[in-house]
Amino acid sequence: MVAGVGAGLALAAMIAAPAMADEGLWTFDNFPAAKVKAALGVDITPAWLAKVQAAAARLSVGCSASVVSGQGLLLTNDHCVVDCAHAISPKDQDYLTDGVLAAAEGAEKTCPGMEADILESISDVTARMTGAGAGLAGEAMVKARIAQSAAIEKEACGVDPKLQCEVVPLYQGGQYKLYKYRRYDDVRLVFSPGNRAAFFGGDPDNFNFPRYDLDCAFLRLYEGGKPAATPQHLTWNPETPAAGEAVFVAGNPGSTFRDQTVAQLETQRTLSLPLALAQLAELRGRLIRFREESADNARVGDDELQGIENDYKVYVGRLQALDDPAFMDARRAAEADLRAKPPAGTGDPWADMAAVQKDIAALYIYNRQLEQGPWDSSLFAYARALVRGAAERAKPNGERLPGYADSELPGVEKSVMDAQPVEPALEQLLLEFWLSKSRELLTADDPDTRLLLGNESPEALAKRLVAGSKLGDAGVRKALWDGGETAIEASDDPMIQFVRRIDPEARRIRAAYDDKVNGPSTRASEAIAKARFAAYGDSVYPDGTFTLRLSYGQVGGWTYRGKTTPPLTTFAGLYTRSTGAAPFDLDPRWIAAKGKLNPDTVFDLSTTNDIIGGNSGSPLMNAKAEVIGTAFDGNILSIGGDYGYDPQVNRTVAVSAAAITEALSKVYGAGALVRELSGG
Amino acid sequence: MVAGVGAGLALAAMIAAPAMADEGLWTFDNFPAAKVKAALGVDITPAWLAKVQAAAARLSVGCSASVVSGQGLLLTNDHCVVDCAHAISPKDQDYLTDGVLAAAEGAEKTCPGMEADILESISDVTARMTGAGAGLAGEAMVKARIAQSAAIEKEACGVDPKLQCEVVPLYQGGQYKLYKYRRYDDVRLVFSPGNRAAFFGGDPDNFNFPRYDLDCAFLRLYEGGKPAATPQHLTWNPETPAAGEAVFVAGNPGSTFRDQTVAQLETQRTLSLPLALAQLAELRGRLIRFREESADNARVGDDELQGIENDYKVYVGRLQALDDPAFMDARRAAEADLRAKPPAGTGDPWADMAAVQKDIAALYIYNRQLEQGPWDSSLFAYARALVRGAAERAKPNGERLPGYADSELPGVEKSVMDAQPVEPALEQLLLEFWLSKSRELLTADDPDTRLLLGNESPEALAKRLVAGSKLGDAGVRKALWDGGETAIEASDDPMIQFVRRIDPEARRIRAAYDDKVNGPSTRASEAIAKARFAAYGDSVYPDGTFTLRLSYGQVGGWTYRGKTTPPLTTFAGLYTRSTGAAPFDLDPRWIAAKGKLNPDTVFDLSTTNDIIGGNSGSPLMNAKAEVIGTAFDGNILSIGGDYGYDPQVNRTVAVSAAAITEALSKVYGAGALVRELSGG
Repeated sequence: MVAGVGAGLALAAMIAAPAMADEGLWTFDNFPAAKVKAALGVDITPAWLAKVQAAAARLSVGCSASVVSGQGLLLTNDHCVVDCAHAISPKDQDYLTDGVLAAAEGAEKTCPGMEADILESISDVTARMTGAGAGLAGEAMVKARIAQSAAIEKEACGVDPKLQCEVVPLYQGGQYKLYKYRRYDDVRLVFSPGNRAAFFGGDPDNFNFPRYDLDCAFLRLYEGGKPAATPQHLTWNPETPAAGEAVFVAGNPGSTFRDQTVAQLETQRTLSLPLALAQLAELRGRLIRFREESADNARVGDDELQGIENDYKVYVGRLQALDDPAFMDARRAAEADLRAKPPAGTGDPWADMAAVQKDIAALYIYNRQLEQGPWDSSLFAYARALVRGAAERAKPNGERLPGYADSELPGVEKSVMDAQPVEPALEQLLLEFWLSKSRELLTADDPDTRLLLGNESPEALAKRLVAGSKLGDAGVRKALWDGGETAIEASDDPMIQFVRRIDPEARRIRAAYDDKVNGPSTRASEAIAKARFAAYGDSVYPDGTFTLRLSYGQVGGWTYRGKTTPPLTTFAGLYTRSTGAAPFDLDPRWIAAKGKLNPDTVFDLSTTNDIIGGNSGSPLMNAKAEVIGTAFDGNILSIGGDYGYDPQVNRTVAVSAAAITEALSKVYGAGALVRELSGG
Repeated sequence: MVAGVGAGLALAAMIAAPAMADEGLWTFDNFPAAKVKAALGVDITPAWLAKVQAAAARLSVGCSASVVSGQGLLLTNDHCVVDCAHAISPKDQDYLTDGVLAAAEGAEKTCPGMEADILESISDVTARMTGAGAGLAGEAMVKARIAQSAAIEKEACGVDPKLQCEVVPLYQGGQYKLYKYRRYDDVRLVFSPGNRAAFFGGDPDNFNFPRYDLDCAFLRLYEGGKPAATPQHLTWNPETPAAGEAVFVAGNPGSTFRDQTVAQLETQRTLSLPLALAQLAELRGRLIRFREESADNARVGDDELQGIENDYKVYVGRLQALDDPAFMDARRAAEADLRAKPPAGTGDPWADMAAVQKDIAALYIYNRQLEQGPWDSSLFAYARALVRGAAERAKPNGERLPGYADSELPGVEKSVMDAQPVEPALEQLLLEFWLSKSRELLTADDPDTRLLLGNESPEALAKRLVAGSKLGDAGVRKALWDGGETAIEASDDPMIQFVRRIDPEARRIRAAYDDKVNGPSTRASEAIAKARFAAYGDSVYPDGTFTLRLSYGQVGGWTYRGKTTPPLTTFAGLYTRSTGAAPFDLDPRWIAAKGKLNPDTVFDLSTTNDIIGGNSGSPLMNAKAEVIGTAFDGNILSIGGDYGYDPQVNRTVAVSAAAITEALSKVYGAGALVRELSGG
């Protein structure tokens, strides 16, 4: 937690300058090929980029993947399919723990709610977006932008469910680009090794290295009920990776904050991160205890806890980075450097951004608790989508809340309609937690607390909502969705009624946040981005936005405080590390297979690539764009990567194609899958 | 948590100057009587001080109290007796929830482990203490000081169990004083109103005001099995307190950090507070869920959770204060001001103190997890006291670890020998939590993690220790204590064996902490205190040390962000605030008594007194030193009081003697107690 790792410590070195060796979440339309040629001797040609782009997929669960056969086979991480494995497990089986290998094409089951997007084109819409809302401020400006974005997306993709269009702000608003994707809305699970092999070492080993995890899984894209034909796939290469080898990662890094101002980072350090950490820690505690209560609770809460513990570690690392005075001093110096250059516009956007932080402080908790709602409650999310979906669909496309534009409705509909298990015991825990934290944070006497609770206790209200709601039934949801506002108003479902009760206030808070925070922040960000382009040209890359990026690097370990960590682990190391006690206990299949496996097989490896959450499942590729593994983690020193990349110690952690191939053959009896990967 | 209170915000105003109006944790031998005369028109004479000192008690549970009858009756807070109420409840009753009124003298039951100390004298031992260890550094210096302290205490008190001597470092080491107490080791519970009346509003209302809590309890001092004769008691005054009235609080404020350096505060801000908050939040989550599992768990975990939630709120307030840039800027300015004055000695103690912080960063987690051990596990605490007690008693008085000097042994013995309930389910939770957090913080591969866990999981090890240990039995503990090292070495109790396994490493860490942290910190603190005395003379008061202090002030509300909060609440307000849902549900006796109670009785009140944790249970006195209530809380804006006092918004919260008297008569049928209070 505040262990002696000082994640942020070494970050200070590299803030002031433009991108350093191996740094960068590069877009495919501005990849620094010359720099890579000089650093690694590898030619990244337009054809190379096009080939990789055509085979790189983004998963709606917040992960990345790659197409690795002509029959729609996708490689990703096991931790990206845990929700799916949980959802599609038959009553008497637990795919999450035990894994699954679909016996044949027909046995591959659809992951509910999952979509895969493959990027087809990027086009610049900066002028249209920055033109919208010109002369306006606050909420009016935000609304004009939302309308423009919805219009652009609809023009480009129409209402074709096989297309997905998204206007993406890059460089904190310095550019707006339209990303057009081919969408697959039937994605099925082919293989998962199960938690014990994929997540050996559990939370204690998460973000650590050396590592011994088979954190891979295979999915398959389907079209019209058949495996999709995907001729533009990458080649599988199960040869042993070597230290020093040039490697590339193509995936979708989530939000980073490398271009945020010091004032914005201070708000994270003193407000949002401490709040998130405290909430995650308590929720984690409730969930740990919940899972100990019964085998069923253990199963139900498994992927939930895994996600919470992962986020918790990430936030701890972020806070450490921002609490590091050397890091913050470097950020201050870099900001001062940029501000000292000839101004690219009028006014002082840094001062404007600093002024916004006071409004964030006043509105943040209300926005978090009332508008963002509970952590991960399916029932609440369904009710919110149904209530708002009905209201928003009744409006013209350009006047709707974000999330309900025509371009987005197919995704919402799928998430509402797909049958997924709703676990009442877990729902009760999550809702009760949210309600009690709302009362704590807003205080008992706040009108919004009274609106949430009335005269009920958090415990009693959560119980009433969970016991009475029928929204776990996909048919009930479909009827409410199809019935629109009339059906919503007539509904006696307590969760629908509860969400309706708080919705006017939640919308009011959202509007205030747009007015006081989002509007002015966007304006200030855009002005700062303009200054940055003026100073540094296109030698810079944009912060992560969960869109396709390419990172270059090498297979390599690191040295920190005098201790050198080599980059490769082997199967032999797994058996040495096992203690027999969870989470260091081996899957029985691995115990049985020990004699058959080549102990020297390279299992996991560390590389110098610059990745971040969202990159999970990304292909690790060699210079020929062949898949030699899949990235599933960073080392503990990489967590500060949200704020900057340190070439000395930030490392990507991947599982090798060599290990996957060996395990598929000798542990899982997945010969057919190996043959498909080999192009056989 | 990070609610919009900005606890630290207003603190900035008053840091640079010496003590302001109503500020101060004043010692009885340096009370600013002239200042109080000028401010309040009240004469605090030596006789006044002597009278109050003779009736002010300190409770070993970390609270304060006052003698309010000639028969040893003590007034304190209900939240100070929750552990006792839990411990002495008969099998079929729950005093903690339902309260208790001892029917007669013979029915008053002893609170296990509780002692009460009444201060008899203060004498200066600065020269002896600072002379010890002269020329030494690090651990050697710390050891010389410990030896000197043990010698002074033994000279003054001998081995008389009715006396308690403590050498107290004041002014962060600027003075060392010997506090000599009369000790009462038989303290019995007379009356508790029960949780629902004492803690109405629960955690949501904790640290809030307006408030409606009867947070009072009565204990009785016993000597030789009979109520102690206490002629030097305070007079009970059940008249209605009035806004603006001069009031005084005599009690034992715990540790404050008002004289710490900026470097020390930064360590709190970035290391110890975030760590403590994250641990408390997760433990709270586990405990909340634990309590929901059964009525028995709810009972067992009640006072535990109450304590954790209180600490959690305190730490949140502390972090907010330290995250407030205006507050920290003021601290930096005050420090610069003092450093700019002519030096009181050689060297730069502020730089020395800053250098120590690096060593704290390296050692802190090891010290916290291995040496400090688990949060509140009775079994671990017993085993540690038994294992160390045996080893330390075999050494000369001056060579023992702190806590085991001859002057301290009676207290240790009492805490080990007194029969107290040990709750296995709660022990399991606490130990499992501690072990899993140790692994998380130290990382799985750290040798100390391996020492703690071996090849066991935290869950399995905790289970084995709790299931196998017999240390819940006071007879077993007595045999091990009396048997000394031979008995400890021969013991097959798994908890004893576990503590023995980690003890050499825990002692090594402790020694390293003494060497690198405690030794140099003490030296630097003493030099800074010298500089402060040179600059400001005795116009300053020392940080809280859980020793007797006197605070002056007035009954008064406050205005914050334009909202004025009046200082008095009434019984009528309680009934208005009740929703029927916990924790805003009324005790049935209060529902029944509604018609009999005078609704206008002043219930709780806020005053401008400067208090802090440890002051709980302190008498609130008028100018004549009559008891008009007992302090039980501060307002939310007072939590930053660890670092400074803001006269505009820091407020003490007390329950009035008027309300206590009315409730005793009309709710609890405690006429005899009322008569005793009236001197009848």
